[in-house]
Amino acid sequence: MSNSNRRQFLKNTGGLALGLLGVGLTGGAISCAKSSSAETTGSSPTSSTTIAVANMPTPTILPWPYQKLDPAGVADRAYTLYNSSGCMMGAFESMVGALRDKIGAPYTSFPTAMMRYGSVGVAGWGTLCGALNGAAALSYLVMDTTRANQIINELFYWYGATSLPDYTPANPKITNLPASVANSQLCHESITNWCLKSGFKTDSAQRSERCARLTASVVRQTVDLLNQQAAGTFKAAYKMPDAVSSCLSCHGSGHALSDVHITNQTSCLSCHPGLDGSHWTTTTK
Amino acid sequence: MSNSNRRQFLKNTGGLALGLLGVGLTGGAISCAKSSSAETTGSSPTSSTTIAVANMPTPTILPWPYQKLDPAGVADRAYTLYNSSGCMMGAFESMVGALRDKIGAPYTSFPTAMMRYGSVGVAGWGTLCGALNGAAALSYLVMDTTRANQIINELFYWYGATSLPDYTPANPKITNLPASVANSQLCHESITNWCLKSGFKTDSAQRSERCARLTASVVRQTVDLLNQQAAGTFKAAYKMPDAVSSCLSCHGSGHALSDVHITNQTSCLSCHPGLDGSHWTTTTK
Repeated sequence: MSNSNRRQFLKNTGGLALGLLGVGLTGGAISCAKSSSAETTGSSPTSSTTIAVANMPTPTILPWPYQKLDPAGVADRAYTLYNSSGCMMGAFESMVGALRDKIGAPYTSFPTAMMRYGSVGVAGWGTLCGALNGAAALSYLVMDTTRANQIINELFYWYGATSLPDYTPANPKITNLPASVANSQLCHESITNWCLKSGFKTDSAQRSERCARLTASVVRQTVDLLNQQAAGTFKAAYKMPDAVSSCLSCHGSGHALSDVHITNQTSCLSCHPGLDGSHWTTTTK
Repeated sequence: MSNSNRRQFLKNTGGLALGLLGVGLTGGAISCAKSSSAETTGSSPTSSTTIAVANMPTPTILPWPYQKLDPAGVADRAYTLYNSSGCMMGAFESMVGALRDKIGAPYTSFPTAMMRYGSVGVAGWGTLCGALNGAAALSYLVMDTTRANQIINELFYWYGATSLPDYTPANPKITNLPASVANSQLCHESITNWCLKSGFKTDSAQRSERCARLTASVVRQTVDLLNQQAAGTFKAAYKMPDAVSSCLSCHGSGHALSDVHITNQTSCLSCHPGLDGSHWTTTTK
């Protein structure tokens, strides 16, 4: 990018003042406009101010430019990538690659292969689903914080509550692949619930194909949400289930017990099966 | 980076052949040497081959160069960053920033502010601890896959089994801050266990300080492990608890039930409290 283009880009993104003045430096050279109260209220950063690293080249200024993508085409790309690179890189690189093809720099500089770390809930640990981890990372790369958080909330609710995968490749190598509701955003729960529903084992070709298609499903949904945000047509559809808001009315931030640092969830009962609606009556008696 | 420096860098990292020949292209322009069997066995990628994106600039070739860092100094940086940028960016940017100061490019090109997405287990969802998410991402940026997986395994076991935080800032704003064993790698469990142990609420200044120090603890441990790998002195210390290997002897990949896609864990009982040693006897009777 030439100096004049860089200057225009800084101006367009509101990063010029930050870039030149280096305001808000903390612990090195980072300027970040996150609300200082965000951590204590259990929420994630909500500021939509452009984030810049002072005295750094253009690629460090966020968000990077976004252009409308084809959800189905990028999903196909994610499905193919899964087999060579895993779920997190499959999700992240499919979208970055599509933007690299359309826009070029700064997308040409991102070492997307690092995102292989998220496979199997991070290196086999079964924590966060890698497709969601990659989609969340991408959302913060190309959207301001407010819009990225809206996308993540919508995507994570949808993932936990929808029968997935809902993507079928053009030439399926396995037919009649079962779908299931994950009831969670975690790799372990998502896969185990699918194994129990489908009857297939975790080391089966069907399970691997399920995760490849799930990665494609997540990417298609993410690109659709990104396109809506870019077009200004985004509308949130999902809301917190009553069962979760009921739990957080005691355990959430600002309430009586305040020992659960979560603002969004699909289900509490998947890990706390005994704690249904009668639990508080029992514990408070 | 000049062309001659870039050529030397490619040569040093073994990326020259990949970069020029663009071997192994899949789903776009990604060359990735991940074992095709990794997904079906529940493990993460294990190849140590340099990863390259064909026809892309130097920064996309992994791993990026690493030089020994001062664990205590980088931990101080992470502690300060937490307050402005959250746990994941606090962990990731503290290490990238230290390497940027020492090495310069390619670290000058990374938009580290994107890593704010991991706060509160990703935008408030309470999934994977953001400090671990950031440390795992950094490990894949600066180490080959085999060494990065060894670091992640060591770090994640340590995190789940150690009384944390074990970091105290030079000028503590809160004294006598309690520590606790997370027994998990998840934000929600880690924080709730600390709240129950300490008696402090999740929206307290003490909880926020605990997470700032925890981020510093994770970074100090990660830098120590990175330094060991760079020096060739790395030795794994942690092993899977008997309680987990006992569970996986039926539920893990390749075994009778094979419905759990996990190769490493600190505890199964934290989410499955009723399933102790007598469970299989009960269920198989």
